[in-house]
Amino acid sequence: MSGGTGSGLRFFHDPASVAVIGASSDPEKIGGRPIRYMRESGYTGAIYPINPTRPEIQGLPAYASLDDLPQVPEVAIIAVSGATAVAQIVRCAELGVKGCVIMASGFGETGDEQGLAWQREMLDAAARSGMRLIGPNSQGLANFATGAVLSFSTLFTEQPPADGAVAVVSQSGAMCSIPYGLLREAGIGVRYAHATGNDIDVTAAELAAEVVADPEVKLLLLYLEDIADLDSLGAVARTALSRGVPVVALKGGRSEAGQRAAASHTGALATEDAVVDAFLSKHGIWRARSTRDLVAAAAFYLRPGVPRGERLAIVSNSGAVCVLAADAAAEEGLPLAPLSAGTRAALTDALPSFASVENPVDVTAALLTDSSLFGKVLPVLGRDAAVDACLVGIPVAGRGYDVERFASDVAEFEVSTAVPVVMAVPQTSVARVFRERGIVVFADEAEAVHALAQYLRHHTLIAEARARLDSGCLDPRPRDRRSEAGPGLARTALNESQSLRLLETVGVPAVEHVLVSHPSEVTAALAALGVDRVVIKGCSSEVTHKSELGLVRVGVPADDAAAVVTEMIATMAREGVASEGVILARMVKGEHEGMLGARFDPVFGPVVVIGAGGIHVEAMPDVQLLLPPFSREDALGAIRRLRLAAVLGGVRGAPPVDLDAWADAAVALGAAMLDPALGLLEVDLNPIMLLPLNGPEHPALRAVDAVVVRAAPAPDLPYR
Amino acid sequence: MSGGTGSGLRFFHDPASVAVIGASSDPEKIGGRPIRYMRESGYTGAIYPINPTRPEIQGLPAYASLDDLPQVPEVAIIAVSGATAVAQIVRCAELGVKGCVIMASGFGETGDEQGLAWQREMLDAAARSGMRLIGPNSQGLANFATGAVLSFSTLFTEQPPADGAVAVVSQSGAMCSIPYGLLREAGIGVRYAHATGNDIDVTAAELAAEVVADPEVKLLLLYLEDIADLDSLGAVARTALSRGVPVVALKGGRSEAGQRAAASHTGALATEDAVVDAFLSKHGIWRARSTRDLVAAAAFYLRPGVPRGERLAIVSNSGAVCVLAADAAAEEGLPLAPLSAGTRAALTDALPSFASVENPVDVTAALLTDSSLFGKVLPVLGRDAAVDACLVGIPVAGRGYDVERFASDVAEFEVSTAVPVVMAVPQTSVARVFRERGIVVFADEAEAVHALAQYLRHHTLIAEARARLDSGCLDPRPRDRRSEAGPGLARTALNESQSLRLLETVGVPAVEHVLVSHPSEVTAALAALGVDRVVIKGCSSEVTHKSELGLVRVGVPADDAAAVVTEMIATMAREGVASEGVILARMVKGEHEGMLGARFDPVFGPVVVIGAGGIHVEAMPDVQLLLPPFSREDALGAIRRLRLAAVLGGVRGAPPVDLDAWADAAVALGAAMLDPALGLLEVDLNPIMLLPLNGPEHPALRAVDAVVVRAAPAPDLPYR
Repeated sequence: MSGGTGSGLRFFHDPASVAVIGASSDPEKIGGRPIRYMRESGYTGAIYPINPTRPEIQGLPAYASLDDLPQVPEVAIIAVSGATAVAQIVRCAELGVKGCVIMASGFGETGDEQGLAWQREMLDAAARSGMRLIGPNSQGLANFATGAVLSFSTLFTEQPPADGAVAVVSQSGAMCSIPYGLLREAGIGVRYAHATGNDIDVTAAELAAEVVADPEVKLLLLYLEDIADLDSLGAVARTALSRGVPVVALKGGRSEAGQRAAASHTGALATEDAVVDAFLSKHGIWRARSTRDLVAAAAFYLRPGVPRGERLAIVSNSGAVCVLAADAAAEEGLPLAPLSAGTRAALTDALPSFASVENPVDVTAALLTDSSLFGKVLPVLGRDAAVDACLVGIPVAGRGYDVERFASDVAEFEVSTAVPVVMAVPQTSVARVFRERGIVVFADEAEAVHALAQYLRHHTLIAEARARLDSGCLDPRPRDRRSEAGPGLARTALNESQSLRLLETVGVPAVEHVLVSHPSEVTAALAALGVDRVVIKGCSSEVTHKSELGLVRVGVPADDAAAVVTEMIATMAREGVASEGVILARMVKGEHEGMLGARFDPVFGPVVVIGAGGIHVEAMPDVQLLLPPFSREDALGAIRRLRLAAVLGGVRGAPPVDLDAWADAAVALGAAMLDPALGLLEVDLNPIMLLPLNGPEHPALRAVDAVVVRAAPAPDLPYR
Repeated sequence: MSGGTGSGLRFFHDPASVAVIGASSDPEKIGGRPIRYMRESGYTGAIYPINPTRPEIQGLPAYASLDDLPQVPEVAIIAVSGATAVAQIVRCAELGVKGCVIMASGFGETGDEQGLAWQREMLDAAARSGMRLIGPNSQGLANFATGAVLSFSTLFTEQPPADGAVAVVSQSGAMCSIPYGLLREAGIGVRYAHATGNDIDVTAAELAAEVVADPEVKLLLLYLEDIADLDSLGAVARTALSRGVPVVALKGGRSEAGQRAAASHTGALATEDAVVDAFLSKHGIWRARSTRDLVAAAAFYLRPGVPRGERLAIVSNSGAVCVLAADAAAEEGLPLAPLSAGTRAALTDALPSFASVENPVDVTAALLTDSSLFGKVLPVLGRDAAVDACLVGIPVAGRGYDVERFASDVAEFEVSTAVPVVMAVPQTSVARVFRERGIVVFADEAEAVHALAQYLRHHTLIAEARARLDSGCLDPRPRDRRSEAGPGLARTALNESQSLRLLETVGVPAVEHVLVSHPSEVTAALAALGVDRVVIKGCSSEVTHKSELGLVRVGVPADDAAAVVTEMIATMAREGVASEGVILARMVKGEHEGMLGARFDPVFGPVVVIGAGGIHVEAMPDVQLLLPPFSREDALGAIRRLRLAAVLGGVRGAPPVDLDAWADAAVALGAAMLDPALGLLEVDLNPIMLLPLNGPEHPALRAVDAVVVRAAPAPDLPYR
């Protein structure tokens, strides 16, 4: 798979000429549909049907073979199968075709040897000439701006295309067609509908990087089953953030069962899903959780402007809908806008005396006799600076209600203000009246709030990612041997003393300690530490669970220290583990125990883990992931998302701990993980003692236990 | 509000005669619609329109007043407002009308004094004659079996009624009409559509208890904004469980914002939402979280039979849909069915070689050329004992696909097996073909799995509740003075020694201790305890935070104990708190720290809290609620739902703790809370030391700290 900046695939989107190898006279067949679609969509380039058995196909002259064409086509669609497909691809490469869209299936996705061998042949041929390949097993690419519809999706006949501001790029044919169909059903134009298939050369992400640069594209929807082409996905995000184009991604395989299913049909590498979340979130890409999620907020994204915040105002003629919408907002984490005194006074003037002028605003059944109520209430809410979005719920409005008036009032409000409106209208007949005016309508309050919440919170995510883009945190990073070598890389575990000193060097405060190799050094060590009670630990890179061997003693009085050191040296000798000395360390008791960890993901590279510490990190995890480089703000954001965050500010008389110190340590660890010279593979600091913000210790944090693993051979360690 | 067994409201459902006070000639007006609906729905009783200005209304003779009627009507609809409504209700009571449906609004729901006074007048009149009242502010009641449609819902014209097996009972008009409309839109018949309003006499729950006893009712949907009439709701649950009728409830006001909104429009009492959850769950009532949730699984519930388990098989012609459906199943907690070797072999025979014969089953695009694939695969899955339900996802199937064949295959499978099927079909045109055959279809895989999960998991909940019904855990309970007196009840806090001894008496193991009042008693106390180190605590019912006053010392050596006791007595004297002695207690260190608590909810009565112990119970809660009486199994279920559960079985070499002991202590505490003679109001046991299952201590659990508050005046305490 190859990454790219997305600038070299123009010919797939606007080819001067297209050959269809395996062209069919039947416009419903795979080899027939692209021809039909291109002609219906106004494609102005040359179309060359290739089929040795027919003189004419769909009214166009047909050719017996590639070699009979009047010119070398810029792109070829491969709608023949197996060995024939491979032979045609080889010939395309020889002739100088720029790109092939390989619709044939029966290759790598079947998992059989023949299919994989054929894929290698295709790749070899393409590599020799610089030709690019889409697929195989691709439903094809569609650009409705140029009419280059190199696709056999049946949905283009079910839901006729209309050029628009949305691009859909998917590794799956179905997951290209479904969003396309749902968008078109909602009356939303779609420019690109790409389904790439096996991604043996051009990846979905590489194509996405190209389409997101199209100035007419205002929203990019992605369906991915792997995130192998990280460089292209990073490029997608950077272009999207620069251009202000929101990106929504549905990544199949969130669960273990889903990953197994994905592996069985695409061979996608299993990745820890939380890392995918961290990557997408860091890059401002909203992660949809279902097909419907992928498109639910599309209409909002296409509005002009961006939302100014996340505070919601709710209006309904039903008290129950007010209650349920408020519940839904709480569930989605959207705060209700506190209305100003001026707004409440204006609402009091506008509404019957028994209506509620708090948020939610219940205009009551008085709507039946006063059809102007929405038209009066919405502008009042729109003028309140605290209101960032409005939900209007109309559960019942049949005969007797002036629905046309409600719709024109809402539509007028929408164009006169920057405040987005979403409606919850269960009655199909009533909903239709609002939809016809371009208003976003959902059938129930929970769906409406869910979609609106995505839109509002995504813009917060985008703003945070935009700051990362500006500060260089999203810059492309060179890979180093730790990624390339993968799990085969030789590893060197540092002992605890080495680990602690390495941490200090890179900026993670570690507990003060002295390594002694003989009891005679204890007195000097204690003097250096300036303490009268110490922690004593046997130090050996060969022992991971020191406590179980009796190699950890806490609170040892100065007088007993030498004896304990003697005993530990003896224990290590008896257990047959290499003694690398005995650690005498200051005792540090944290107000709380945190942890910091880091590892090297084969796909995503360095990953930092921050969370609650202690012995139950695995069994009761309370952790967040961060992908370096990241800022102190990013780390503080991760800390705030921990359950532990509820107590870090100080509860029950306890002092608050120094969160900045913890965040800074995480940033330092992230930077260290990025440094190829350090060659870090794994870091496990648990516990990290979190100390009071204004206490005597600076920095108010200490790693007291450390395991560091580096790639070997590593440069000589300056740490003893 | 009054409870009831639901047997005394027949006249509202099948009245011999109905007077409509404020009858209108306009069949779209509130006073006109019930007349129109009753006549359209085949109501065979007498209808008496009352309107002094007209001789005839909608073709029926009209009467000037109640007193002019040829007979006393069994039920009267009150469609006049304010003082007139009150006067008519008073006259109804005098004449011997059995029940009024009060549609007029402007009463208690406005919160103004006049409205509340009018409501009291209505209630007083009704109480004098035994007349029952629905409302005021009620949209009315509808029984489509008898044609007694005493309702003005506009939805009955938008979506014409059809009698069926579903009953909808709601406190809100909108939340009666919305589910009614959605069910009818899905082609599902509705027998009852009741909207009660202010519930000043008959409550929604009391009505529900009556309708759920109707032998034709197979599903009850409830919308509630308060759960004040707990007795009726309990009766609903018992009847429903006995009859095998699933009950789904949407309770508005889950969130604080929602509760505030509910209070503003109905005056509903704010209740801790987790207690509502516990009550509904205990009674086998599924709690919907949105309007759509309330009706989403209705079609499943109306199937014959009950599901045999929760294991899902997924079939699709798209690998991506297989992946996404597996993700959705994981998110909803539905396990995928492991297919037997026989099933896999049969699938291998039925499917192309490159298709997946694991679950999910990807029949691949081969479906385009072999329309029999679903018909071959489904029966194979249905025969596998591990498959409890099937999801069929068809993302793309337009021209070229034999959708009629797929639909007939699925429909045939549905009737020939007990395995429920749900479909995920985004294309409206394709979905229609399946819906026409009565198959349950959703637009996307997440919605389909969500609804199916509700259906399957609700049956597990029902089975658990059914066991509670059989063992008497759901029996109606008499209220005692603790509920009646509410927050005004005088309270007596026990001191720690009294608290611990009380716990021992009721069956909660507490730490062994001796209470001394003078240092001279220490030696004997230590001998009695048989220990050489003790915990020493000052004992005073006036001190809640002993540690802060230095009144807790842990690990005191025997030799120092007398001095510490002396010091604590002095401290209590100095702090001016009543000394009730000094506790010397055995030291107990738990493998883990749990907590048990109990309190008296003004609505729900006794509530037991079980969870992780420690000082952060409030800030980082990990608790579950249980409503007594409950069984050891119920308590174990609650423990298994704790995050802490992940470590209780023993991790990192730690022994498992005795969960049965903890569960039994919870059961004992629950029983104690139910005992009016004990008069317990609050119990807080934190921490509870959880001890190893096979360790030396029996029972393997000790409460080491206890605060008990009883209602005062209480019977003399036998505990010192």
